[in-house]
Amino acid sequence: MSKIITLQQSIMAEDEKFASSIREANRERGLLMINIIGSPGCGKTTLLEQTAKHSGLAFGVIEGDLATNRDAERLHALGVPTVQVNTHGGCHLQAHVIGKALESLPLEGLDVLFIENVGNLVCPAEFDLGEDFKAAVLSTPEGADKPLKYPYLFRFSEVILLTKTDLLPHLPFDMKMFEEDVKSLNPAAPVIRIDSIGGGGVGEWTAFLKKRIAEKKRG
Amino acid sequence: MSKIITLQQSIMAEDEKFASSIREANRERGLLMINIIGSPGCGKTTLLEQTAKHSGLAFGVIEGDLATNRDAERLHALGVPTVQVNTHGGCHLQAHVIGKALESLPLEGLDVLFIENVGNLVCPAEFDLGEDFKAAVLSTPEGADKPLKYPYLFRFSEVILLTKTDLLPHLPFDMKMFEEDVKSLNPAAPVIRIDSIGGGGVGEWTAFLKKRIAEKKRG
Repeated sequence: MSKIITLQQSIMAEDEKFASSIREANRERGLLMINIIGSPGCGKTTLLEQTAKHSGLAFGVIEGDLATNRDAERLHALGVPTVQVNTHGGCHLQAHVIGKALESLPLEGLDVLFIENVGNLVCPAEFDLGEDFKAAVLSTPEGADKPLKYPYLFRFSEVILLTKTDLLPHLPFDMKMFEEDVKSLNPAAPVIRIDSIGGGGVGEWTAFLKKRIAEKKRG
Repeated sequence: MSKIITLQQSIMAEDEKFASSIREANRERGLLMINIIGSPGCGKTTLLEQTAKHSGLAFGVIEGDLATNRDAERLHALGVPTVQVNTHGGCHLQAHVIGKALESLPLEGLDVLFIENVGNLVCPAEFDLGEDFKAAVLSTPEGADKPLKYPYLFRFSEVILLTKTDLLPHLPFDMKMFEEDVKSLNPAAPVIRIDSIGGGGVGEWTAFLKKRIAEKKRG
């Protein structure tokens, strides 16, 4: 039993080294990398589609899925450079896989690189992929009680995107509780509301990205 | 108030032994145990609330969450015997914790015991808790593409519950694709559509449960 634990720890330590070297390489490139985390169907890919259509930013995507390349195809159709990573059942991406994916992408001229993590609020929150920061995505149908139920993600993300706000009239979503709970976990993180159909909030998201990209380029 | 049990680490081989002994004990009791798995906010607790109000069945719940006991309190308010298990960040329940939880519940006279697993489509699908079978829950806002993207859960569940069908008029949900994809992964599993507001589908769900309870009691 102790041998197994030691092995797991050394694998994790190895992966932390990968994460550090990725972070160092992206610092030299001046490339911002954001790890997007949220449940299956919360609107991660739709957010990236909207970013492609409306932000004017040049970006690439590392697309994580257990199986299928449907999301990568959606982004590829919009001309976004995309690498698909299938975890074949694995519940989160790991840094050594991101390192390989980075070698396959044309990074020259990109403003920002997104990692769309496997659809899961739990496991991906704990793994460092060498990103600049994590972005949490929650869709309104998941319910306003989720920040306190999944506190790790909401505490350790630097921005929180509340998607599918177009569904609010049809849902019992307690916005006051949601905002208070997020603030209690993470007072500094901005909450951006995204209307996934009408495109509301994409301007605010783009402004947030441009600010962080400029900070990164200044080094 | 619900009881709170802290999840501890255990190696998988030991956990498989726990799962087998739980299954054996429930066989002797004639007690059906169902492991309910789905994303955060897909409607697992709401389904159990509807089952409490409309099925006429006597059941208990082992309630798994990373943090909080909000779901257990919702069920406790309806008179459902409930044990809360907090995983403190763990992404799935494990059999040895279920064994402890079973000791805390009044099992006498129950028709069925539900395990509401941690909100996660990925990790819980791989762990045997000693249940009779797994039930997959997908809510319509998550999207019709999810069975192929998360195939393990949909392949290894014996019933699939499609919840929040009341939202279908407001969503781009491709029902034909969903049904075909589920059939390709798991031809035998019934798909039950649940209207989480109006209660549609709860009759079909109750009939399914009664059939499986009767089979279990016959041994």
